Amino acid sequence: MEAEERVAALAARVAPVDGEAAVAAVRRHDRLVKPRGSLGRVEEIGVRLAALARACPPPVPRRPVVLIAAGDHGVLDRGVSPWPREVTAAMIAGFCSGTAAVNAIATTVGAEVLVVDVGVASDLPAHPRLRRARVRPGTADLSQGPAMTRAEAAAAVLAGAAAAEDLIDDGADLLVTGDMGIGNSTPAACLIAAFTGRPAAEVTGRGTGIDDATFDLKTRIVAQALDLHRPDPGDALGVLAAVGGLEHGALVGVILAGAARRIPVVLDGVNAAAAALVAAALRPEAVGYLLAGHRSVEPGAGAALDHLGLQPLLDLELRLGEGTGGLLAVPIVVAAAAVLRDMATFDEMAGVPHGV
Amino acid sequence: MEAEERVAALAARVAPVDGEAAVAAVRRHDRLVKPRGSLGRVEEIGVRLAALARACPPPVPRRPVVLIAAGDHGVLDRGVSPWPREVTAAMIAGFCSGTAAVNAIATTVGAEVLVVDVGVASDLPAHPRLRRARVRPGTADLSQGPAMTRAEAAAAVLAGAAAAEDLIDDGADLLVTGDMGIGNSTPAACLIAAFTGRPAAEVTGRGTGIDDATFDLKTRIVAQALDLHRPDPGDALGVLAAVGGLEHGALVGVILAGAARRIPVVLDGVNAAAAALVAAALRPEAVGYLLAGHRSVEPGAGAALDHLGLQPLLDLELRLGEGTGGLLAVPIVVAAAAVLRDMATFDEMAGVPHGV
Repeated sequence: MEAEERVAALAARVAPVDGEAAVAAVRRHDRLVKPRGSLGRVEEIGVRLAALARACPPPVPRRPVVLIAAGDHGVLDRGVSPWPREVTAAMIAGFCSGTAAVNAIATTVGAEVLVVDVGVASDLPAHPRLRRARVRPGTADLSQGPAMTRAEAAAAVLAGAAAAEDLIDDGADLLVTGDMGIGNSTPAACLIAAFTGRPAAEVTGRGTGIDDATFDLKTRIVAQALDLHRPDPGDALGVLAAVGGLEHGALVGVILAGAARRIPVVLDGVNAAAAALVAAALRPEAVGYLLAGHRSVEPGAGAALDHLGLQPLLDLELRLGEGTGGLLAVPIVVAAAAVLRDMATFDEMAGVPHGV
Repeated sequence: MEAEERVAALAARVAPVDGEAAVAAVRRHDRLVKPRGSLGRVEEIGVRLAALARACPPPVPRRPVVLIAAGDHGVLDRGVSPWPREVTAAMIAGFCSGTAAVNAIATTVGAEVLVVDVGVASDLPAHPRLRRARVRPGTADLSQGPAMTRAEAAAAVLAGAAAAEDLIDDGADLLVTGDMGIGNSTPAACLIAAFTGRPAAEVTGRGTGIDDATFDLKTRIVAQALDLHRPDPGDALGVLAAVGGLEHGALVGVILAGAARRIPVVLDGVNAAAAALVAAALRPEAVGYLLAGHRSVEPGAGAALDHLGLQPLLDLELRLGEGTGGLLAVPIVVAAAAVLRDMATFDEMAGVPHGV
């Protein structure tokens, strides 16, 4: 079977979430020993977890993993970021040695860190935390032509899905999306513009923090790429191939594989949100398995989450990526499941009148 | 020494936070392997932790404890809440047996739960999680006269401080404020009005979720109490005695004791914010040791945090109390310290240009 057909088969495995389990969670929340609705959005997350797991109470995640999809970008040659391409590989070395922000935060929330190289342009030494699944050494310049072929885009999706499936087979029960790729907020902006229909100026951001001149250039390049490719949001894989990144493709696979296995997938920032749009275009049912970890400073992230109907859990003015904002939301997700499993109901508790 | 003098002595032990450690944390953040400022509010929290610990990097909290101060309220007889007084004791039984929301969330974030009874009106069976330090069995009705005497208010502060000090001696290195007391959002509103100067209508909320008639009554009672007592914000202990609750007093002690020992204190909701205003009036330097866990639905909480200059970490539409919102912020606080301690700097990392 060709790669593109295998992506379609993967997407078809994503089932709708379970409305009955969601209703059961709503009813259970109302019987727990607390005023109705008093846990606010924690209750909403609990309902989502029950629906996606098809069980109330839903399982309490015990083995969260952040999966950092990595790739490089031909469009970087246009000057969209002040950081050189080699930083992608240097940061991956940091993820492997445990000295990056994602490692510090992953340790705090009890998560493992895994990197999957689907498109880095530099050599990477072998490491137990690094999965080698390179489709090509970086994309082509999306402002001049397609970033990659459809077959390469499909291969990136499958590589991310395979990584996620192996993690789930090993016991991972909550996935956090991470990303690394100098320049990747440019393809993210293109993807978000293509799927939301918003203009480049509304979805292009300053990434890691660029100056006004670079920001103007970046916005023009996004607009130029949209003019060049006229991406059709009805052809999700075509959009990904034309203006996406290999790591976005891999994150599409992570989302679809997590959803197919009924595992919650916590999105990090703008790159995750862009990938989620592709996944939702391939299979709208996948959105039910997604939780938005935080509201990134990037305007495109907010536009994408609005389009998907997802409300972020945190708003900490983060713009780092790597999975950091997704990880910081993990304890809230775990707590939401623990509330449904571990709290007593009014029926079980003496001395408290029911249902005030 | 009389109780009131001992409170003054406790407050005097709170030293200003360290500006030099704060500057060192700002500089260290700029050298860590990430774009400058890209961790947003996580960096801000790291700077606060360095300042209050007088060390950069600050210690990473390992033993968080939520201290739930509990008391009953004479004003409940006016009908400010639909829940009967006995629910205070029933909920404490739940905290002890581990079946309340605070327990589910504390387990998620690795925190211990301790209850300190400074003013419950019902009998409470002994339990290892319950500290007995009852000053009186509930306050008097603050709408008719003082809620308690100055000596009782001071005794409640000292009881909370003693509980916190014993926990710190046992290794607690981060305190989360919790509270339990049916009716306690009414004294909280009175305290917040007294210290912020805002009218009753701006600081009174629906507590656990009351109907319009009860809400109108509650707002009138808060206004009536302010008219009756004309509390002087320059006399913090006098305000606490006139319109506060015993558990608010205990939380004042928790805050002052934590600050005196240079331990971060994470505030939960409206009752914690009210107590923080009292603590800040006794010793403005105490504010430097506080972190606002979340933005409660209660309008008084926001008013109090604004007055204190504290910006909440989470906004999850919580209105439960018990310490739940403070606990959910703990992983962010821990991550903020871990980032400063565990991340590599650009100097230590090959292949990444410094200071882009």
